[in-house]
Amino acid sequence: SVQSCHQDYFSRQKNTNIRLTLPVVCFVWQIAMIILFGVFIRYDEESDTHWVETKAHDNITSDIENDFYFRYPSFQDVHVMIFVGFGFLMTFLKRYSFGAVGFNFLIASFGLQWALLMQGWFHSLDPQTGKIFIGVESLINADFCVAGCLIAYGAVLGKVSPVQLLVMTLFGVTLFAVEEYIILNLLHARDAGGSMVIHTFGGYYGLAISRVLYRPNLHQSKRMQGSVYHSDTFAMIGTLFLWMFWPSFNSAITDHGDGQHRAVINTYLCLASTVLTTVAISSLSQKTGKLDMVHIQNSTLAGGVALGTAAEFMISPYGALIVGFFCGIISTMGYIFISPFLEKTLKIQDTCGIHNLHAMPGVIGGIVGAITAAAASESVYGKQGLINTFDFTGDFKDRTVLTQGGYQAAGMCVSIVFGVVGGAIVGSILKLPIWGDPADENCFDDEVYWEVREPATHHLLFTI
Amino acid sequence: SVQSCHQDYFSRQKNTNIRLTLPVVCFVWQIAMIILFGVFIRYDEESDTHWVETKAHDNITSDIENDFYFRYPSFQDVHVMIFVGFGFLMTFLKRYSFGAVGFNFLIASFGLQWALLMQGWFHSLDPQTGKIFIGVESLINADFCVAGCLIAYGAVLGKVSPVQLLVMTLFGVTLFAVEEYIILNLLHARDAGGSMVIHTFGGYYGLAISRVLYRPNLHQSKRMQGSVYHSDTFAMIGTLFLWMFWPSFNSAITDHGDGQHRAVINTYLCLASTVLTTVAISSLSQKTGKLDMVHIQNSTLAGGVALGTAAEFMISPYGALIVGFFCGIISTMGYIFISPFLEKTLKIQDTCGIHNLHAMPGVIGGIVGAITAAAASESVYGKQGLINTFDFTGDFKDRTVLTQGGYQAAGMCVSIVFGVVGGAIVGSILKLPIWGDPADENCFDDEVYWEVREPATHHLLFTI
Amino acid sequence: SVQSCHQDYFSRQKNTNIRLTLPVVCFVWQIAMIILFGVFIRYDEESDTHWVETKAHDNITSDIENDFYFRYPSFQDVHVMIFVGFGFLMTFLKRYSFGAVGFNFLIASFGLQWALLMQGWFHSLDPQTGKIFIGVESLINADFCVAGCLIAYGAVLGKVSPVQLLVMTLFGVTLFAVEEYIILNLLHARDAGGSMVIHTFGGYYGLAISRVLYRPNLHQSKRMQGSVYHSDTFAMIGTLFLWMFWPSFNSAITDHGDGQHRAVINTYLCLASTVLTTVAISSLSQKTGKLDMVHIQNSTLAGGVALGTAAEFMISPYGALIVGFFCGIISTMGYIFISPFLEKTLKIQDTCGIHNLHAMPGVIGGIVGAITAAAASESVYGKQGLINTFDFTGDFKDRTVLTQGGYQAAGMCVSIVFGVVGGAIVGSILKLPIWGDPADENCFDDEVYWEVREPATHHLLFTI
Repeated sequence: SVQSCHQDYFSRQKNTNIRLTLPVVCFVWQIAMIILFGVFIRYDEESDTHWVETKAHDNITSDIENDFYFRYPSFQDVHVMIFVGFGFLMTFLKRYSFGAVGFNFLIASFGLQWALLMQGWFHSLDPQTGKIFIGVESLINADFCVAGCLIAYGAVLGKVSPVQLLVMTLFGVTLFAVEEYIILNLLHARDAGGSMVIHTFGGYYGLAISRVLYRPNLHQSKRMQGSVYHSDTFAMIGTLFLWMFWPSFNSAITDHGDGQHRAVINTYLCLASTVLTTVAISSLSQKTGKLDMVHIQNSTLAGGVALGTAAEFMISPYGALIVGFFCGIISTMGYIFISPFLEKTLKIQDTCGIHNLHAMPGVIGGIVGAITAAAASESVYGKQGLINTFDFTGDFKDRTVLTQGGYQAAGMCVSIVFGVVGGAIVGSILKLPIWGDPADENCFDDEVYWEVREPATHHLLFTI
Repeated sequence: SVQSCHQDYFSRQKNTNIRLTLPVVCFVWQIAMIILFGVFIRYDEESDTHWVETKAHDNITSDIENDFYFRYPSFQDVHVMIFVGFGFLMTFLKRYSFGAVGFNFLIASFGLQWALLMQGWFHSLDPQTGKIFIGVESLINADFCVAGCLIAYGAVLGKVSPVQLLVMTLFGVTLFAVEEYIILNLLHARDAGGSMVIHTFGGYYGLAISRVLYRPNLHQSKRMQGSVYHSDTFAMIGTLFLWMFWPSFNSAITDHGDGQHRAVINTYLCLASTVLTTVAISSLSQKTGKLDMVHIQNSTLAGGVALGTAAEFMISPYGALIVGFFCGIISTMGYIFISPFLEKTLKIQDTCGIHNLHAMPGVIGGIVGAITAAAASESVYGKQGLINTFDFTGDFKDRTVLTQGGYQAAGMCVSIVFGVVGGAIVGSILKLPIWGDPADENCFDDEVYWEVREPATHHLLFTI
Repeated sequence: SVQSCHQDYFSRQKNTNIRLTLPVVCFVWQIAMIILFGVFIRYDEESDTHWVETKAHDNITSDIENDFYFRYPSFQDVHVMIFVGFGFLMTFLKRYSFGAVGFNFLIASFGLQWALLMQGWFHSLDPQTGKIFIGVESLINADFCVAGCLIAYGAVLGKVSPVQLLVMTLFGVTLFAVEEYIILNLLHARDAGGSMVIHTFGGYYGLAISRVLYRPNLHQSKRMQGSVYHSDTFAMIGTLFLWMFWPSFNSAITDHGDGQHRAVINTYLCLASTVLTTVAISSLSQKTGKLDMVHIQNSTLAGGVALGTAAEFMISPYGALIVGFFCGIISTMGYIFISPFLEKTLKIQDTCGIHNLHAMPGVIGGIVGAITAAAASESVYGKQGLINTFDFTGDFKDRTVLTQGGYQAAGMCVSIVFGVVGGAIVGSILKLPIWGDPADENCFDDEVYWEVREPATHHLLFTI
């Protein structure tokens, strides 16, 4: 049969047997996590039973002051974005839904543990005790860190093995923690929703890896590329949960009170504006004005990416609309013009178009953030508001908004460099012939790594 | 082939090329939004960086007092209802999932911007500054306003172009803001969950439009009507997210504290009761007691609609159950008996049956609200409780509950009149032959407005 | 045709006409609920309009102190788990999605009403007034109670009629309320996330019923067992919403402040660990290391079950990871080795494998809880922390942690006994030939209880 013939051909070419490597990596890394957590990770004072004493000591009158109640609803939304949002957004391929949702699930689950350690070491290692104290904000940051790697997954979707994805996540989280430390702590840039730290880094990290793993004969699996009607509908579940909960993403770790409130309003407006211009450009790109699901699934989200840095600033409601307006246009045009160019000229095969959804809008977000910061004024923010928003305290209490703008721009450059250089190095590691990646003619096919019970007849319907 | 033959026939009949109109409408309207937002919309004091001064001035001791923390979880649930709930509920048609989810996405994104302006001008324009100050409650109200238009979309699903939908939303939001102003401000009726303001108005608005756009030859696209197995499963995603989050919908803008708490309990109970009677009637309607997915997808929600007005009142838990009990019966019977009658006799083609899910239960909700208000007493509510619940303050401090009941009933009439008359006028505008609507034989088919990549073979399976 | 031939054969065998029984049960039981709610159920002081007086009386300064704001976000997540989580998890069968989502919807809607009464009578009947006062915590507990019955549904999925399911729910909720009273009140065991009370009870209840209803000729519907590609993707929606929101489940009714905060952290970590070991064992179980969707859909959740009891304890982050580590292994091995054994040797046909997802991890959770409780110390918890966590107050103020550990273990035994004995009795009732259950060759087929509009051709694709 066609199926078994493929199977034979494919086994002559590449060994995708991961029965040894995948379990070993999962077991060893998980055991390492347990040991490192045992040594380093403890509950913080708001999640420890000693909270009752903390409350008395700090004169906190009510349990509602626990940070849990400020952040938990946002955390849950972010959690949905990571697992359902990213997972289902990538189910658009006709026959890679299991890999999309399942591998996303796997690498996010590993990544968030490793992120708690890496971010802990860099951001919150207690010098006295040598411990990392975690609470709900740590969980949000871990989810954020994982998002960077899931973005990168989008570029190589269907072309790598789960073992490669785990390796990519291990290094991705590590690089993330370092660049985040440089950008947020050393440069003291602001990036609440991670335009730079998450999206720009994650985007270029994935694109660089995809470049190194370039497959000149990928056209051999052309029959498996593209979507079918139902897979596009599944992908819209991912799109919508990302879109709806993006206000929570951009506000999850902003300042209590007005900070969270404002970030939500800005992101809500920006994303609404993006939808209209995405539809406009998508319709313009076809002879009869028909819409393309790829654009609706992806470019409608570009506004959320681009407002990641500035969401907490006083960018003002119409400012948010303007950012969304241009992002919808640029991202959709990216799908129409830039993606084919990247593939043909730069040999970057970008399955999900993360260049248009994350890398480019992330850079826009970094620029918007730098400009908005540089343009901030006491008359708009208020004296204390300005200090709170840009955290002009401690070593940074004399920083001017203009300097801040410069450091914001510098932060963006750091995230690009980390993405490109880190991705190139990690890509080289992933090129080693030991990770069980699929042959060119078996890409985008769940049957390589999943038991698919379905009778072949049904399958053929979609492929022939 | 069959496909291309359709294509030819169809292009002779009607011009569905929207390559000019759709982009122009999207661009021009979005630019108009940016300008109007620039002139009118500002952050309110709880989302502005001056919040730190507001706190000091008003002796607010903690950031948790920011309205954001009272309303944000409910807002996010409402947001899910608007985009996933309404969007996926309408995916039940075998070949209109893209249009259902995608156009819902488009018009909601435009509508919420326009709603912030319209509702702002009518409800919260600051006379000193001429500005509209928005916060999380404004976002909820904008989503509510959009809900009215999405309900109306249900009546014309599959029969209109996206340009028509945008026009329908423009006028729908405008009418909504006016009738809301009359009902809530002038009549001072209570309608927290919008039985009257949202569901009755939206229902009759959609039905009136559908009446004006009556298509005598709609049977020509009969092959595309109805559902397939998977599209019904997708629709259940919409149903369940609407059902689960309806308690948040009805409580999202009720009074802090007991008001939100009580509205949640009432709606939770009412909806549970509706499910049982819906199942009972659905089973009764078939010779062998089999259930009909159309009923389960829609009528199970009728209780939430009907408790929209009374959810915040002391209707008591068993009162909520009774409302749900009758709504399940009436709504399911509507699908069995009234919808065919409306189509044959009144020439109202109601794709989703919004008459049974929104219009009729909305009217019931208005009546329940009027009766419950008229029957309110100080012994049940407490002196201050009665004042708080019905907002008997300012100009209305001497109003009696009986008078209140009368004004509630008057409010319901206003919503019906606005829906019917407004819908008739807007329907006439939509009848102009410039909007690119599909021919009768191409209704309910995504291929008119979407690039569908799927091989025809698969498609034929469903249509032949 | 094949279809009609089945139909004939089937109607000779068993009468699945439920046109009388289903509507009667729905109507009579719903009316009973209304009457009982009228007699017993009232708003509690936080959801009553008298809250304004309560606030004044108790010196509560802000509405945010209303329990609603501590619990509502968790409640909504739990609600999603009950309806979308459980409902969609069971859609994995190729042709039983309507039954999975629809009957889950029906029995949960009835069960939560009955649970409010049963749990009210046992836990919160006010002796003065003879009333049950409900608030948001009651709604969470009702959802929890329903979860036990939905777990049991998993064992008999596809093999019972909706009437049988309603009967199973009626008795299930009743038994639940009694065992819960014994375990939580009499034994004073702690079980915030219900490892014992919900999962162990629900698991064994379902398994015992399935044992009594054993069908020796179930192989006759073999063509309908198993999944297809799209049904597995739908099931992942259920899996992910359960997985993501499990931290809310385990923390929904724990102590305000650190209790909720800690339960979230523990569950989040535990579940992440489970994913890695599930993937490892699943891959090990296949010749070429391919993954099995059944494992990913189910065993990834076992960690959440097993941390139900100990989630609020100071099990420490690495302790949570260890629990998850072993649960992933044990649960996946359950699917590979134990389920076939149960079916062949013990004649327990367990459609969803609830033994591996709920019963076994539930027992592990009970043991983990007992050990963690017995090992608790003042040095780790703090003096007041220990009292708060284990509620060593009133009659139990002199209890030691070691005694507590013993009572925890006793609680687990109670839940097993109630599950097994209760299930055996209820199973016998369900064996009566009056409930309209399907014939062996019609199991797992939606066409028995649902109007399925689809043309037979499409259907045959999946079955031949």
